[in-house]
Amino acid sequence: MLNVEIKGMGTALPKKYVEFRGGRRYRISGSESHIGLLCESAEKALTNSGMTMDDIDVIIGACAVGAQPIPCTAALIHERIAGDRTIPAFDVNATCTSFVTALDIAANYIQNGRYRNALIVSGDVASIALNENERHSFELFADGAVSAVISPSETSGILYVKQLTNSKGAHLTEIMGGGTSLPAFDYTLENKHLYQFHMLGKEVVALSITLLTELFANIDKNSICQLKDIDMIIPHQASSALKLIMRKLNVPTDKYIDITKEYGNMVSASVPFALDYAIHTERVKRGDIVFLLGSAAGLTVNAIVMKY
Amino acid sequence: MLNVEIKGMGTALPKKYVEFRGGRRYRISGSESHIGLLCESAEKALTNSGMTMDDIDVIIGACAVGAQPIPCTAALIHERIAGDRTIPAFDVNATCTSFVTALDIAANYIQNGRYRNALIVSGDVASIALNENERHSFELFADGAVSAVISPSETSGILYVKQLTNSKGAHLTEIMGGGTSLPAFDYTLENKHLYQFHMLGKEVVALSITLLTELFANIDKNSICQLKDIDMIIPHQASSALKLIMRKLNVPTDKYIDITKEYGNMVSASVPFALDYAIHTERVKRGDIVFLLGSAAGLTVNAIVMKY
Repeated sequence: MLNVEIKGMGTALPKKYVEFRGGRRYRISGSESHIGLLCESAEKALTNSGMTMDDIDVIIGACAVGAQPIPCTAALIHERIAGDRTIPAFDVNATCTSFVTALDIAANYIQNGRYRNALIVSGDVASIALNENERHSFELFADGAVSAVISPSETSGILYVKQLTNSKGAHLTEIMGGGTSLPAFDYTLENKHLYQFHMLGKEVVALSITLLTELFANIDKNSICQLKDIDMIIPHQASSALKLIMRKLNVPTDKYIDITKEYGNMVSASVPFALDYAIHTERVKRGDIVFLLGSAAGLTVNAIVMKY
Repeated sequence: MLNVEIKGMGTALPKKYVEFRGGRRYRISGSESHIGLLCESAEKALTNSGMTMDDIDVIIGACAVGAQPIPCTAALIHERIAGDRTIPAFDVNATCTSFVTALDIAANYIQNGRYRNALIVSGDVASIALNENERHSFELFADGAVSAVISPSETSGILYVKQLTNSKGAHLTEIMGGGTSLPAFDYTLENKHLYQFHMLGKEVVALSITLLTELFANIDKNSICQLKDIDMIIPHQASSALKLIMRKLNVPTDKYIDITKEYGNMVSASVPFALDYAIHTERVKRGDIVFLLGSAAGLTVNAIVMKY
């Protein structure tokens, strides 16, 4: 067991939202920014942990898309909240499941004594890159940020971790333009759609079921904790297909959090937002066995099973 | 000590180069691509390690700028080289020192038994985003990729790791446009320079000396290895100011690798390229104490002191 706990979390949502099918999709407007949301969530996470930046030993940025190509997003967060402190800042990126990957990396560092308290900052502003003509993604994605302070613990801990990537799905969910393959310099109004988010929903669902079946089998094979031990699954709020996927995996509806209709898919903030929601609605309590279930472009899925 | 070794490395350079002040700056042309270079270096690293992808348990992408905003670059590498294997793929980003940060993360995973062999893939194609009007950076940066297989070891290991970020330097080295702050959608010919690389050389040197002085003092304070024990420093080939910085830090010229004039600054590939060069020119041999000295936009510096 990695002897760590999620000490406290903080969430930040834009002021405005649009409504689709009875749910809210928060989207930045006016002077709001990606970095602004990230830092707001970080400050709240510190407050909710009873800490200040003086207690933090590392900042890990865990967003799908960065604020700038250079430097990394964690350095830009550091600029706003860390002042003169020379604590390290770096990014971890596994797209929508960056938070779960970063939590694992932070836990390893805390376990081996390198850092005592880690601040993970996740969040995206998907709304910038949505394509109004692709209705299933346009009506699904929302902006938001969630941060968490990870600390040593004598009572909580991570029991099991597994991450799988099946790159047959590498182009099922993507933003092609904006990196080195198709640089910003090639952007025109005519090829705008190549710089926007694109998702082949049905194909993602099919491949996700295959990969999640492998992930679930892996959990049941490990010697420390099995699926029967889990009190609550906190899945990535990928889409309305979450219900179908969970049924295929034989997960009863009262065993997982599904707030996709209400809040949409918040990309890297999705899993920690759902966890924070579960804690506030008392569906997860200290001591519960919680299964953070990430899924992401790549196609990547991952699991952290932890005693919260 | 983290009981790992760099089992083997592989480098990939573009076919063409331009010459400045007697040095070569390799730059992609024709059908060459970022992902192509990365995968070529990965295949060579496997061959040089006497391994195939069947031996690899995780792919860590460690580039400054990604190939696409979504998915992460490691997933796109996975697509080309990993086939049906569902090994995990994720990115680590600390700009120019991503390789050093990723090596530390990989070493922690290998030490705790999560993964046996990790493939780190670093490299950038800076040439895409250089500004011809900013001569000091235009003549400095070059494209390239370097991969390394990291494995458990009974004789080699990492003795000391330290990373520091001083975000007063967050905007001294940057590419502003292309992320969420200034999206590709806002690109015009008039604001092209905002999407290009920009570096305030003198300010970077001044802040680097301050931060590196802190880093060196930290090494000398630790109980396992001090600066006097180090056989060779492999610094980031940041610029021709490397000589000045090393003099300020009292490092004799025969104690560090400086190939900036010959190869320029290869961004994330810079440190591992210099290490590979040092190994091939026999300035580093198995058993030597080597100090990988990263520096990066952020401004971030880091140290891995290892018995190679």
